[in-house]
Amino acid sequence: MVNSTTKVRIGILGASGYTGAELLRLLARHPAAEIRTLTAERQAGRPMAEIFPHLRSLNLPTPIKIEDVHWDGLDFVFCALPHGTTQEVIASLPHGLKVVDLSADFRLADPAVYAEWYGHEHRAQALQHEAVYGLTELNRGGVRKARLVANPGCYPTAALLPLLPLLLDGLIEPGGIIIDALSGVSGAGRDAKQQNLFCEVGEGCSAYGVGRHRHMPELEQELRLAAGRPVVISFTPHLIPMSRGELVTTYVTLSDETTADDLRAALAQRYDAEPFVHVVPAGVAPATQHVRGSNSCMIGVFPDRRPRSAIVISSIDNLVKGASGQAIQNMNVMLGLIETLGLEQAPLFP
Amino acid sequence: MVNSTTKVRIGILGASGYTGAELLRLLARHPAAEIRTLTAERQAGRPMAEIFPHLRSLNLPTPIKIEDVHWDGLDFVFCALPHGTTQEVIASLPHGLKVVDLSADFRLADPAVYAEWYGHEHRAQALQHEAVYGLTELNRGGVRKARLVANPGCYPTAALLPLLPLLLDGLIEPGGIIIDALSGVSGAGRDAKQQNLFCEVGEGCSAYGVGRHRHMPELEQELRLAAGRPVVISFTPHLIPMSRGELVTTYVTLSDETTADDLRAALAQRYDAEPFVHVVPAGVAPATQHVRGSNSCMIGVFPDRRPRSAIVISSIDNLVKGASGQAIQNMNVMLGLIETLGLEQAPLFP
Amino acid sequence: MVNSTTKVRIGILGASGYTGAELLRLLARHPAAEIRTLTAERQAGRPMAEIFPHLRSLNLPTPIKIEDVHWDGLDFVFCALPHGTTQEVIASLPHGLKVVDLSADFRLADPAVYAEWYGHEHRAQALQHEAVYGLTELNRGGVRKARLVANPGCYPTAALLPLLPLLLDGLIEPGGIIIDALSGVSGAGRDAKQQNLFCEVGEGCSAYGVGRHRHMPELEQELRLAAGRPVVISFTPHLIPMSRGELVTTYVTLSDETTADDLRAALAQRYDAEPFVHVVPAGVAPATQHVRGSNSCMIGVFPDRRPRSAIVISSIDNLVKGASGQAIQNMNVMLGLIETLGLEQAPLFP
Amino acid sequence: MVNSTTKVRIGILGASGYTGAELLRLLARHPAAEIRTLTAERQAGRPMAEIFPHLRSLNLPTPIKIEDVHWDGLDFVFCALPHGTTQEVIASLPHGLKVVDLSADFRLADPAVYAEWYGHEHRAQALQHEAVYGLTELNRGGVRKARLVANPGCYPTAALLPLLPLLLDGLIEPGGIIIDALSGVSGAGRDAKQQNLFCEVGEGCSAYGVGRHRHMPELEQELRLAAGRPVVISFTPHLIPMSRGELVTTYVTLSDETTADDLRAALAQRYDAEPFVHVVPAGVAPATQHVRGSNSCMIGVFPDRRPRSAIVISSIDNLVKGASGQAIQNMNVMLGLIETLGLEQAPLFP
Repeated sequence: MVNSTTKVRIGILGASGYTGAELLRLLARHPAAEIRTLTAERQAGRPMAEIFPHLRSLNLPTPIKIEDVHWDGLDFVFCALPHGTTQEVIASLPHGLKVVDLSADFRLADPAVYAEWYGHEHRAQALQHEAVYGLTELNRGGVRKARLVANPGCYPTAALLPLLPLLLDGLIEPGGIIIDALSGVSGAGRDAKQQNLFCEVGEGCSAYGVGRHRHMPELEQELRLAAGRPVVISFTPHLIPMSRGELVTTYVTLSDETTADDLRAALAQRYDAEPFVHVVPAGVAPATQHVRGSNSCMIGVFPDRRPRSAIVISSIDNLVKGASGQAIQNMNVMLGLIETLGLEQAPLFP
Repeated sequence: MVNSTTKVRIGILGASGYTGAELLRLLARHPAAEIRTLTAERQAGRPMAEIFPHLRSLNLPTPIKIEDVHWDGLDFVFCALPHGTTQEVIASLPHGLKVVDLSADFRLADPAVYAEWYGHEHRAQALQHEAVYGLTELNRGGVRKARLVANPGCYPTAALLPLLPLLLDGLIEPGGIIIDALSGVSGAGRDAKQQNLFCEVGEGCSAYGVGRHRHMPELEQELRLAAGRPVVISFTPHLIPMSRGELVTTYVTLSDETTADDLRAALAQRYDAEPFVHVVPAGVAPATQHVRGSNSCMIGVFPDRRPRSAIVISSIDNLVKGASGQAIQNMNVMLGLIETLGLEQAPLFP
Repeated sequence: MVNSTTKVRIGILGASGYTGAELLRLLARHPAAEIRTLTAERQAGRPMAEIFPHLRSLNLPTPIKIEDVHWDGLDFVFCALPHGTTQEVIASLPHGLKVVDLSADFRLADPAVYAEWYGHEHRAQALQHEAVYGLTELNRGGVRKARLVANPGCYPTAALLPLLPLLLDGLIEPGGIIIDALSGVSGAGRDAKQQNLFCEVGEGCSAYGVGRHRHMPELEQELRLAAGRPVVISFTPHLIPMSRGELVTTYVTLSDETTADDLRAALAQRYDAEPFVHVVPAGVAPATQHVRGSNSCMIGVFPDRRPRSAIVISSIDNLVKGASGQAIQNMNVMLGLIETLGLEQAPLFP
Repeated sequence: MVNSTTKVRIGILGASGYTGAELLRLLARHPAAEIRTLTAERQAGRPMAEIFPHLRSLNLPTPIKIEDVHWDGLDFVFCALPHGTTQEVIASLPHGLKVVDLSADFRLADPAVYAEWYGHEHRAQALQHEAVYGLTELNRGGVRKARLVANPGCYPTAALLPLLPLLLDGLIEPGGIIIDALSGVSGAGRDAKQQNLFCEVGEGCSAYGVGRHRHMPELEQELRLAAGRPVVISFTPHLIPMSRGELVTTYVTLSDETTADDLRAALAQRYDAEPFVHVVPAGVAPATQHVRGSNSCMIGVFPDRRPRSAIVISSIDNLVKGASGQAIQNMNVMLGLIETLGLEQAPLFP
């Protein structure tokens, strides 16, 4: 579909949020991408240099309303709209158009689970079945053939990259998985909310959504697939005073005769050839500082003092591997492009 | 010993670190305290207005070396020296002098456990037996009669305030306790270390001391006393970009027929009359922002989706309830003063 | 009016913002104050423990609407309402009630200047004439006799404390004053605005209101009074990633034969007996860290390499000396109380 | 010298500091660069994945000591050594080797000025004469022919990009220039110093080096060249709690009949074709958030209320355009490469 002389003509629906900005930052340097159309509802008509002054020099198209988009002129769409409004928008797109959806709308495959966690029936259940879960490293085959990819949530991305292979290999038990996570504030989006003001978040931390965060059914859905049976987890996210980054500390129960070193070795082998997933040596603790701005995931494994237990720590940039970077990675796979195109930049530290 | 007209003459050993500064801040407003003597090894002779410019207006005594202290002029000593050097200093003090030690040196009662975790024999084992563990709310009787109080570590303070009553009441199981903690950088002290530079810590987070943090044997010692049998825990601290504050998220296994609501109710009743420990209503998540600069601990309890499990979250200011504030609270108890003296200030937010 | 046995019954209008929270924090420890009535428009009826969880243990009254206040039960009112709405509220208060207004509404004495900068006629011009400008250290006599005190803006407080005495003493020229200021984000208030989100403000800085900030006419009004002739200044505030604190760097032209040392000596003498204003020695740079949470102002003076020039640097906590602390200081003066009551706490560092 | 098939073989002397890390981050994506040799004195022999975990996936060479470098294998050297030690190292390099020096050692052309500000005679005065000041946009011709380029300081870069053209065009007066600057902490380097700890710098700000910062003679040297006569400036840098970024607010005196709009128009025209310098429209304030991680400089001009005055604000990332990015830009020019190679990435926001 994409040859060396034509560029993929890209539309971004919902370009005025943080994941939109991050798509723009990365696609601006993607050698096969051409940013054609941007949409923004409340800010339609406002120059992007005002919405995102840091992108001033990119000379981006001014965002329009979704109903004004000429779909014919686009080869590929990223959908970065709010959860809930997304499903109807995507259902109305021309059927030939390939899409990566960054919202949660198509991550849950089971309509009943969706209804339970979101409080209403899904409004595009046919697409819900068609959508492919885009945890790229672990579902490349599916993504390659997909027309609609549901880009994973940020916490599931960081948690599942180590957990799924360990479950598939039978190295850990499906029971007793506890996922304790830390996130920067950008995960909460760019809407003006008092709880995300600098003065509310700065110099402090707290848990949120304890026991009822919507990434929970997404985690359990994928863990169940890997374990071959239902999995019930504990998941507690915390908000800490940084803009980007996500650190997930997972407490797991080892299978018989298995050690933390075995886990680390298995993951190192599994991800050895992967450009974006790095298993660090024993004793090294992954830090979000070390993946900032990059599409990398760092994974470390530690022995626990409790018998038959281990601690798995993974870090990502929630806006890159946890959102826009993985979305572009999925686009590359869907279009048969080199998977790392546009995603090669090294992390920004300090 | 202390009547209404005389003030307690206080010495602070190791006054140039962050816990020293915090003792000074709080004692400066303590109506029964008189700061008589400060020591600092490398900075002896340097005016406190240079060491801590924020305390300039207090006109504090210039720090001297420990060997130059006139112990006769002191009624009470806070020892905020580094771990390891403390034990010999305290062993050499006049026997009548009451002491709160903020280091880890006297927290572990068992010489064998001390030697295992610190790599050398304890050098004041007699005092190790005499020292009283100063988690004030849960050991007031012991503290009242003590000459030497071992002030608890910051993580143990935040974790044990909820856990010990729950274990004593048999509401949770001693097995399977997982303590996941977040701390501000001040817990690492004021020494110049690359890993604590603003640029290394800012805009990022990571775990540290995974599986080998020295607060672990302290936690297990106290949990064992409450449970009546050995307890092995998992404990993982994380460093996050803030100066003060500590949030501890603990995953516990409920006893038969017990619910998260039972835990909350039991803790609320246990701490109902306590001025510094506050159990928040169901659904409210404790935040470190809400205890900053105060001697408070906030505790919340949440149901977990896993069966027979609950999540307990507690927050403190690591430099106040987690160190200097609790040290003053202990002094008040040891001297028969009103326990809240010098500790009534409300938290600083934002 | 206030004797040793009765407490001042206080009302706070607009208690749900950051200056309201700070009034509550400080008044809660004021030995002569009793917080009787709180108002909040949109949040009337909501418990203060929800609006400000850090004040949970104070058991504060639930805020009501202004129209529901029983003024008879109050001796003193702090008005922390938004600019513009304040003037009509204060005009409608019982005439015997003493008031400190923290808004900008009564800071400008000249109705024409007010109209120029605020775009509408002042709606309480009689009170505008009656109001006394409450820069306490420099207008104690006026404040003592006032019924209505206009609490100074945060930038004017930090800038005028050094500038006014220097102008009055003829040590600096009224021309060529350049005020360059840095502020924490709390100065922008607690309203949910995108520009004050953690992610917008974090890890960055920028100037704002360049050439048109409303503290400019307030600064010029007071400088003119001290200089005895009109003064036109340059004033540029910057927003930096911290919650509290304000640092003002002022570039001044020295009078003939005057040196930076002369300025420092004059200020040191002027403020020698003041409990809240501290002139630091030559070579020491004031920092906001060193006044955080306190009612202090630190002032330093430096020689400039340009001839006949000096640099004056002053730091305050914008929410304390720059707002609520100075408001309480003014109340103390207005009521004949000891001026430092409720304001003695040392700064919080780190 | 460099054709399309061979890469420039690059050595970085002093690769373990923040400017070293930034050179590595940027050069790793430079299509014509090959990182051959790294040096680090104290950390020689330690893997770069330990020194900079964020660069783990780049598989960088392990740093060696300078005396062990094989200069024959290198085409180009970046010198990121501490000030003072640099001059002797560069004097000892093979004469054919092209060098960009990021230290201050070769920025001052006048040996007397150097001796005055650094307290000792320059130890490579011949090279001091040969070195070309590398403010790329304004000295491209000189840089193109240079063998040794002195990379400008971060503050001079941000301040001179607007000031030099304005002086050269006679739009502003050489007298009365006041430069007030804000910097992130990375400018202070990676050495373990107490004053740069997170807890010392966080949630606060202060001025430093008031009246005696070593960027002052560098600024005055270049301003003098543009003005054609000696220039004495005021320069006050401030440290604020962020890792990267620099904002410079400059107060200038306008020439007769000139307005702020004239200044903006002149700068917009001057930099119209420049890829890295952006003059923003009237009313827009440059922010460091909007250049983070990029080689951009943003410039805004504002009218001042004082007659014949204007305010010029410029922002850069101190580690990119203020150090390593501009160093690579200079290398590109020196080697006849496309000037933007390796420097095209968009800023990282949030």
